[in-house]
Amino acid sequence: MSKEIRINAFAIFSPSHLSAGLWRHPRDKSVDYNQIETWTELALILERGKFDGLFLADGISLYDTYGGSAASSIRTGAQFPKLDPLLLVPALAQVTKHLGFGVTSSVSYEAPYLFARRMSTLDHLSKGRAGWNIVTSFGDAGSRALGQERARPHDDRYDLADEYMEVVYKLWEGSWRDDAIRRDRVSGVFSDPEGIDFIHHHGRHFDVDALHVSEPSPQRTPLLYQAGASARGRDFSARHAECVFLSAPSKRVIRDTVSDVRRRAAALGRNPGDILFFMLMTVIVGRTDEEAQAKLADYRRYASEEGTLTLFSGWTGIDLSQYRPEDPLSYIKNEGMQSTIEGFTIADPDRVWTVREVAEHAAIGGKGPLVVGSPARVADEMQAWLQETGADGFNLGYALMHESFSDFVDLVVPELQRRGVYKQDYRPGTLREKLFPALGAKLPASHPAAAFRHAPRE
Amino acid sequence: MSKEIRINAFAIFSPSHLSAGLWRHPRDKSVDYNQIETWTELALILERGKFDGLFLADGISLYDTYGGSAASSIRTGAQFPKLDPLLLVPALAQVTKHLGFGVTSSVSYEAPYLFARRMSTLDHLSKGRAGWNIVTSFGDAGSRALGQERARPHDDRYDLADEYMEVVYKLWEGSWRDDAIRRDRVSGVFSDPEGIDFIHHHGRHFDVDALHVSEPSPQRTPLLYQAGASARGRDFSARHAECVFLSAPSKRVIRDTVSDVRRRAAALGRNPGDILFFMLMTVIVGRTDEEAQAKLADYRRYASEEGTLTLFSGWTGIDLSQYRPEDPLSYIKNEGMQSTIEGFTIADPDRVWTVREVAEHAAIGGKGPLVVGSPARVADEMQAWLQETGADGFNLGYALMHESFSDFVDLVVPELQRRGVYKQDYRPGTLREKLFPALGAKLPASHPAAAFRHAPRE
Repeated sequence: MSKEIRINAFAIFSPSHLSAGLWRHPRDKSVDYNQIETWTELALILERGKFDGLFLADGISLYDTYGGSAASSIRTGAQFPKLDPLLLVPALAQVTKHLGFGVTSSVSYEAPYLFARRMSTLDHLSKGRAGWNIVTSFGDAGSRALGQERARPHDDRYDLADEYMEVVYKLWEGSWRDDAIRRDRVSGVFSDPEGIDFIHHHGRHFDVDALHVSEPSPQRTPLLYQAGASARGRDFSARHAECVFLSAPSKRVIRDTVSDVRRRAAALGRNPGDILFFMLMTVIVGRTDEEAQAKLADYRRYASEEGTLTLFSGWTGIDLSQYRPEDPLSYIKNEGMQSTIEGFTIADPDRVWTVREVAEHAAIGGKGPLVVGSPARVADEMQAWLQETGADGFNLGYALMHESFSDFVDLVVPELQRRGVYKQDYRPGTLREKLFPALGAKLPASHPAAAFRHAPRE
Repeated sequence: MSKEIRINAFAIFSPSHLSAGLWRHPRDKSVDYNQIETWTELALILERGKFDGLFLADGISLYDTYGGSAASSIRTGAQFPKLDPLLLVPALAQVTKHLGFGVTSSVSYEAPYLFARRMSTLDHLSKGRAGWNIVTSFGDAGSRALGQERARPHDDRYDLADEYMEVVYKLWEGSWRDDAIRRDRVSGVFSDPEGIDFIHHHGRHFDVDALHVSEPSPQRTPLLYQAGASARGRDFSARHAECVFLSAPSKRVIRDTVSDVRRRAAALGRNPGDILFFMLMTVIVGRTDEEAQAKLADYRRYASEEGTLTLFSGWTGIDLSQYRPEDPLSYIKNEGMQSTIEGFTIADPDRVWTVREVAEHAAIGGKGPLVVGSPARVADEMQAWLQETGADGFNLGYALMHESFSDFVDLVVPELQRRGVYKQDYRPGTLREKLFPALGAKLPASHPAAAFRHAPRE
């Protein structure tokens, strides 16, 4: 097989994700986003299509930039309401065998000790299919919900994130030796106290004196995803991430980020091939180009301009309700944010975008490319994006729940398989082993987590 | 039907709960406690037996009193390791239709805003079958894991707990009006911003300015369990709890607590009948008394004295490794603890217990009564305990996973049904409606949570 294309579904535990307003479409299932059946049905579709994983976004902050309040987000259902995605995993792991799970959780909010146990539990329950999308939270609304005055400045957040990683690595990798768990019915030893250490962490942000109360899960450290686009974020990715998620409408931006992060990783002593890059893409496929275009036209009738600009304002920190539709985004700046204005202006050197164009383009699929056409056209485009960027696969957004995914599974997956660029079946083993067949279930020795491991017993 | 007996299974996400060492029994399934199949199988047994719920204990503190370290707990598997029980619920809700879930979570560790979303999510995913066992944490080991210097003094913990309840009530009951959620495909309104309020809480322990990011779940506030035995704990129960869990080996203790909590509840303006009392009991049943006694003798061969004393030392804060087996517990005191020495000495005015007797008695079923016999004998005992105490039902501990529960379902449940004191089938509706047929899915107006509700819209 040529280089294998990796595919995650990209979703959120909310009535809409990157296609605001499409929950109104009569065939869309998002209005039942809070019913477990909606998600088990989706997971079964994804596993039928041999998707590598389901990547679940999250964030407790509100989209409250547009118009200066959360009202438009609430009204249009633009990522609101939003439930806790961690709790989907046990139920979805229960109905699937191979599908991986990448769940977003913020180092700004969750106590590392409790979070470490939670992820270990997920990894046990899913038999090694748990992944964590590490985020630092940017929204003030989330901070106020947690009684923190404001979100931390950007670089501070990454310092905290680095320390958080150190704490959880110590718990996941360092607290238990491999041979500490015994289950020995004869001697009556369930675990060997000699093989379990308390970790003692005293840092700027965290103090933890504890042993890890979970025995080692199949992967120990869950598969690590990250999505930071800033220089500091790329550095964090290069250090910690096994999978990096990128969203931009320009191949050049993706390509530059991929090569920059790989370079940084190599400089840190990691194998650049130990990082997989997933780029955001939304696909609308039909049996023919015409059928696909007709679907797109149908979907667009349900898109919400208000919802789209609400999301975009949230991402950029710029209240786009203050601008005219024909204003070019290039003159709109917000120095303080990790702005995804970058993704459309500074970072898209190929063209200038207006507010209206953003609203139209981003209405289906947000910041990523939207690919519309026959299975062959979609497969061509996907291959071209990977070839020209050096990325490894896609986080596939959706227009409709679940139609976008079932269409992809029924039409595009067979085409990719015919081309020899997509798996015919899952590999055995944990999520890490499925994605990195050359590595084992645990992080490789070149990963910084390995520094916190026990030396083997003498 | 006469007064209906309520039954929960009482378990923990760990290789042993209240019967230390019995994981060594060849028929016990506890060594696979970290496999999801172990739990789905259990849930199906419980639902077959029409159990009201599965009550899951938890706590991140270690049993580190006995011998001055956690070594004995680790070695004997006495509530160690211990995974996060919240994450079992989505998978178990997925394979059942009626079984309720009571999950322990501590107000000392989890941020109320995140916890409120988590419980709302569970209540959505289980279609209204989520319950919360409210605990305040007493262990220093847990505090050190969270970077808190020591556990708070006892009464302080309850002050914090009262404030925590206020925060979560505001989020669950006060943030959304009933009619704020629309899902209106025609108007495009998913939720009505006019119907959703930010809550503003500024207290001694918590500052929360936020709206609840979850739409109201079927029960809004999950079913509230509590287990405090101290005066302050009883007061908390009387104020907040819908189900109270009691564990003591003496009918008199149970009876006094039941009537005291009911009296306190009435004084607070609640209907004393709106609180159900579940008492700990462990049952070993056979087709005949002889068969049951033979089972008990077989089980006892696997009990761990070290594990039992480890648990008991943890509950009482007294290192029982320092005493001789024949020492009476009545002279051993620990003023600082909510000591369950009470449960065997002060609180069991009927007899004096020695260290050895505690180890033997508590080896199977911990602090509660152990009932052994034929279905008729067990049913007689259960009815007597309820009649003489005023309690409503049982949290049933187990000797063996899953044998204790399947034996109970196969042998005792039909006997109780024959006697007309146990349901033939589940009632429809949420967990709250199943347990309180006279009430609705939401908390009644007499509950303090109701004070935080919106007035109806004019």
